[in-house]
Amino acid sequence: MVAFDAVPDLHDPRAHDPVFRMHSGGKMDVASRVALNGAEELSLAYTPGVARVCEAIVEDQGLVDDYTWVSNVVAIVTDGTAVLGLGDIGPRAAMPVMEGKAVLFREFGGVNAVPICLDTTDVDAIVETVAALAPSFGGINLEDISAPRCFEVEERLKQRLDIPVFHDDQHGTAVVVLAALENALRLTGRLKETTRVVVCGAGAAGVAVSRILLAAGIDDIAVLDRRGVLRSERDDLNDSKRALAADTADRTGRSGSLADVMAGADVFVGVSGGTVPEEVVATMADDAIVFGLANPQPEVHPEVAHRHARIVATGRSDYPNQINNVLAFPGIFRGAFDARARAITEGMKLAAADALAGIIADEARDDLVIPSPFDPRVAPTVAAAVAHAARRDGVARR
Amino acid sequence: MVAFDAVPDLHDPRAHDPVFRMHSGGKMDVASRVALNGAEELSLAYTPGVARVCEAIVEDQGLVDDYTWVSNVVAIVTDGTAVLGLGDIGPRAAMPVMEGKAVLFREFGGVNAVPICLDTTDVDAIVETVAALAPSFGGINLEDISAPRCFEVEERLKQRLDIPVFHDDQHGTAVVVLAALENALRLTGRLKETTRVVVCGAGAAGVAVSRILLAAGIDDIAVLDRRGVLRSERDDLNDSKRALAADTADRTGRSGSLADVMAGADVFVGVSGGTVPEEVVATMADDAIVFGLANPQPEVHPEVAHRHARIVATGRSDYPNQINNVLAFPGIFRGAFDARARAITEGMKLAAADALAGIIADEARDDLVIPSPFDPRVAPTVAAAVAHAARRDGVARR
Repeated sequence: MVAFDAVPDLHDPRAHDPVFRMHSGGKMDVASRVALNGAEELSLAYTPGVARVCEAIVEDQGLVDDYTWVSNVVAIVTDGTAVLGLGDIGPRAAMPVMEGKAVLFREFGGVNAVPICLDTTDVDAIVETVAALAPSFGGINLEDISAPRCFEVEERLKQRLDIPVFHDDQHGTAVVVLAALENALRLTGRLKETTRVVVCGAGAAGVAVSRILLAAGIDDIAVLDRRGVLRSERDDLNDSKRALAADTADRTGRSGSLADVMAGADVFVGVSGGTVPEEVVATMADDAIVFGLANPQPEVHPEVAHRHARIVATGRSDYPNQINNVLAFPGIFRGAFDARARAITEGMKLAAADALAGIIADEARDDLVIPSPFDPRVAPTVAAAVAHAARRDGVARR
Repeated sequence: MVAFDAVPDLHDPRAHDPVFRMHSGGKMDVASRVALNGAEELSLAYTPGVARVCEAIVEDQGLVDDYTWVSNVVAIVTDGTAVLGLGDIGPRAAMPVMEGKAVLFREFGGVNAVPICLDTTDVDAIVETVAALAPSFGGINLEDISAPRCFEVEERLKQRLDIPVFHDDQHGTAVVVLAALENALRLTGRLKETTRVVVCGAGAAGVAVSRILLAAGIDDIAVLDRRGVLRSERDDLNDSKRALAADTADRTGRSGSLADVMAGADVFVGVSGGTVPEEVVATMADDAIVFGLANPQPEVHPEVAHRHARIVATGRSDYPNQINNVLAFPGIFRGAFDARARAITEGMKLAAADALAGIIADEARDDLVIPSPFDPRVAPTVAAAVAHAARRDGVARR
């Protein structure tokens, strides 16, 4: 009933900056879905009427999904340790990103989202905190938590909670990469079974991209960190890298430097933030596929990439083929929520990637291997595929 | 961009019940405050533009209040142990009440609120969880946590956090009772200094009501729990009751049963849920004031009360003089947020009560000692008084 607004200080140069103007007062609000125009409506939405809804949930806990917002609200949880390319900036400075994500969940997926920026970076404390607040949410979207802690946080929460837990930096990126790659492989006449992939970067995104490509049937992947190809004989690997080495270069026998494995490779996926020299890109196979996803500076600049590769994708909105997580997470949670899924399975992620690729399959061309974030078909198509996969995989509650 | 709605099952009798219909799908949503109609707006609200806002907050942490929603969002935190008159119903069944509260915050105070229902009743775990998520919120509204744990949770969080921490069952109730009592005392020609008060109930509300009446200058208060008047020689008192005994009946020498202290008393405040026999009410002073606040059954039914008292208030919306916390918490947090207060001081609570009483001071009559929840003057008037008191008390950041 009462509207209050911040008054901007016009002497502050930020008051004239479009980015800061858009952020002034924050990017989100809570909205009521019920009218409260008088005592009768108040007595339905609040006391005494609300007590009957509470009592119904006491009798049947599952009714919380029908009569509260819990089944349509996700917590976006971060500790602020790996935010964008900015790194460990803490929970307060991370908030604008988390609010932005919440707005994207709402606008693209019709999913409510609440940013929870934590004042701790301790794995045990993160897990305990999220577990304690879990009854308030229908899902947990982990965000911008640095590797390798993010793997343990996700794994422990998945074990402990019966709602979807999804680390978007890993799986959102992986889903969109796989979708773009499916169209790119088709356009260049490749089969997954015989495609050679190089993944540069073995953090959250690199591990998840490699895992989903393996799950999709790509067998020949070399994953690199700063010291070279992951091989389990290396003595400097953490658990997630060692396990990944066993499923990738250990099996194919590939080893050495980036230059070694790039020679003749079909696909490059950069999620590292470094720079690949042009002479190395030049050694890739004909009709090469180059995804340089670091922002704002891709590992291979698109103009360089195009001199040696046929299909080029980046994370940037000012070039074609933008690998943007917003293509995945709103539809994935929309679908998981529509099915009241207890988890997000590998099958649901693969279904999301297939659906995303399929949206533009008929119109795909070298500079259109992935839909635009503003393509209105994206979220509903991904959501339908994810909900279907949840039911098929036995994790749906409806 | 995409709208999804639950389809009600019309065979469910709840689909035809106005309470359950209003609760279907929950009572709240998140709303975007920014338009996202294309790539340019996306690049301002999210990457790459958002990175500049994050960097500004890294340099000056206080900017989080200007450029995110943090400074205008309160967490409504409960463990579900003392919900309405329903008791310990757990975090899921508590959610409809917390959502209702969030809607009231939004509609009456322009304050965003997010329900956080915790899967723990352990004091240490509650404190650690709330402290961990505190960077995400501008204030903490504790709700429906049972006494005496609620006192320790509130005290420890107030010590630990530099944002307002407010247990509404205590202080919201106390503010509204004091406001109504101020008008009632004036109408019946009483001075605070010579008024004798009986507070029946020594849980969260009883302790806080007694404390605010003491702070407002009422000296003669007898507080009772189920075993009689709180006196420090009793050996069955917890810390909060013992401390309160020292400030109330220990000083006045009153003791004994409810009947003993009601004889000749000017004011009765019931926050216990029991029933006071009519013959006991009949022994009160002339022009007595009876506030029976238990819901839905007041300690003294209004019809009984009116046979022996001049001014009668309840917690019910179907009788005049409704003591309803919604008169306090939206304006208190609105005012605290407007002043960017680091805490809610005793002075801010007293200011809220004075402002609330003052709204109808000129029109007060026996059946109008407190404004209606729908009086549009309430939240702005309370907010202005609270913000002013925050600045006076030195806890305002602007």
